[in-house]
Amino acid sequence: MAEKKCGERTLKFASPVYICGIGSVCGSEEAKGPLHNYFDMCAPDGLWGEKTFEKAEKKYYETAVSLALQDCGKKAGDMDFLIGGDLLNQIISASFAARELQIPYFGIYGACSAMSESLALGSTLIDGGFADHVLCATSSHFATAERQFRNPLELGTPQTPTSQNTVTAAGATVLSRERTDVAITACTIGRVVDMGITDANDMGSAMVAAAVETVVTHLEDTGQKPTDFDLIVTGDLGKFGAEMFLDLSRRLGYDMTNVYKDCGVMIYGGMDGKKCGGSGCGCGASVLNGFLLKSMRQKNIRRILFTATGALLSPTSVMQGESIPGVAHAISIERR
Amino acid sequence: MAEKKCGERTLKFASPVYICGIGSVCGSEEAKGPLHNYFDMCAPDGLWGEKTFEKAEKKYYETAVSLALQDCGKKAGDMDFLIGGDLLNQIISASFAARELQIPYFGIYGACSAMSESLALGSTLIDGGFADHVLCATSSHFATAERQFRNPLELGTPQTPTSQNTVTAAGATVLSRERTDVAITACTIGRVVDMGITDANDMGSAMVAAAVETVVTHLEDTGQKPTDFDLIVTGDLGKFGAEMFLDLSRRLGYDMTNVYKDCGVMIYGGMDGKKCGGSGCGCGASVLNGFLLKSMRQKNIRRILFTATGALLSPTSVMQGESIPGVAHAISIERR
Repeated sequence: MAEKKCGERTLKFASPVYICGIGSVCGSEEAKGPLHNYFDMCAPDGLWGEKTFEKAEKKYYETAVSLALQDCGKKAGDMDFLIGGDLLNQIISASFAARELQIPYFGIYGACSAMSESLALGSTLIDGGFADHVLCATSSHFATAERQFRNPLELGTPQTPTSQNTVTAAGATVLSRERTDVAITACTIGRVVDMGITDANDMGSAMVAAAVETVVTHLEDTGQKPTDFDLIVTGDLGKFGAEMFLDLSRRLGYDMTNVYKDCGVMIYGGMDGKKCGGSGCGCGASVLNGFLLKSMRQKNIRRILFTATGALLSPTSVMQGESIPGVAHAISIERR
Repeated sequence: MAEKKCGERTLKFASPVYICGIGSVCGSEEAKGPLHNYFDMCAPDGLWGEKTFEKAEKKYYETAVSLALQDCGKKAGDMDFLIGGDLLNQIISASFAARELQIPYFGIYGACSAMSESLALGSTLIDGGFADHVLCATSSHFATAERQFRNPLELGTPQTPTSQNTVTAAGATVLSRERTDVAITACTIGRVVDMGITDANDMGSAMVAAAVETVVTHLEDTGQKPTDFDLIVTGDLGKFGAEMFLDLSRRLGYDMTNVYKDCGVMIYGGMDGKKCGGSGCGCGASVLNGFLLKSMRQKNIRRILFTATGALLSPTSVMQGESIPGVAHAISIERR
């Protein structure tokens, strides 16, 4: 039974929810970045032998799932539930992968916060006694997302300085009550925060307030300070968003300078032409299941607060003059 | 702590998860149907004073939520979590409503199975000890869905005989551990089932196998027979789908003739021009929170198995030649 005090948004798990399998696969651009050695696999190109980019994204999704299952020596049939989502309309990557996997399926949509959302729900299913193994997985793809949310790639539309590049990648995590070295101990579920940003090419500004609000709430609910974590990581705020994150949290009395990183900044670190960095569900998912959790297994990091952030816009909402709401969920992960 | 045997997909709640608030609102077409007296409110038209149909759908969503909160004398701030989704790209009705409500938010996507999916996840959060109150809500709108999934309304495209009409309606349920007369006692989470149907105007055929598979699994997992329920209700299989449901389940050894109903058939029962009946998340959600749960409160029904069904297609997946996978989750609800 979980502890949760009235009015708090942080779920603290009575027994840790262990991470027993991890899998990550990235695209050819991400393979040129500084984290390439941490991904289990790098695909040769965006189509990966498929006829369409959407079918290729499903292949990325299924590959990350296979790698995570392999990593813990389990089969799809051992999983009690799959919690999955992605960026595409009607989350077709996750749903069509669920058709192949035949695991009882919860589809979620939280834009780029999907990895955090699936881990939060998965942890409650394990800790609540509803499951022995839960598979959490998500993906994104540059070619499917850009044409759905922005412009047809064929137009060659120039990017603005605040633009981010949708990451082509997928990540999967198997949660379990079987003891391993790394576990989820708490999570904070985000509220939807809207700062009135209307520029669909400036996702960092749209999501940063939600990220700060969730991280600060987590610290307050658990009575911790930023330096209790080795890393506080956001999903894809990008370069400008990451600067704003540090600035906003400092104004709220929390200096996170020495412990803060953003997956969107890390994944393309030092590469030319990537503007503000990476974005997309697959960004946080692959950096978590690649770099972060592997570093924790290798004892290079002990405690992290993984906070994937989502911008809840649609092309229709933008055209109808709506601003862009953001959401973020924080997952506390530690070596045990 | 919940009971769940290995290999079973049915979650049986140790303590019942009580339904303490219900809210439903329908559009002007649905108000002409036989269930109109059961809905809390009927809106005057599809736009309901808003500038766009999408903004109107959000108003339906928020209205159903207000009615459910009113029904149990609670405020949005009393809710620990909102679990919501709808049919629109990036589930904008639910996410923009979550922005106004400021309740920690899990966005889900399960097409028309959303009401069942949210009740299943909400029940685990209550039974697992993670929440005292969870708000589950979903909506659909004829004008927003038809133009997104099929054709612009202005074209006046004739419907095929297997067509269903997306219902304009929303429904909301407040779950709690505080004792009331009606409770959720178990739920079965669906697998994604694909029978190879490719006709986007024949959702009943695409979803029926998933519905039968989930309902039969529920009966087998719990050792019950169909007549242990007063009603076994599917979300929106429509007239042909409902016939197929009875036929398919009979072939599996279960005769459900006397206990089976479909919300899509009920909501437009006896009305002209509605082809196979209603569809959409709002169909099951409004019939559940209107007719079904009110009838249970009035002691006209004692036990139901509510099984909302979703077709997990996207216009893109159809154009790329994919068939239409279905999913269904069954929620066992009874008077206590």
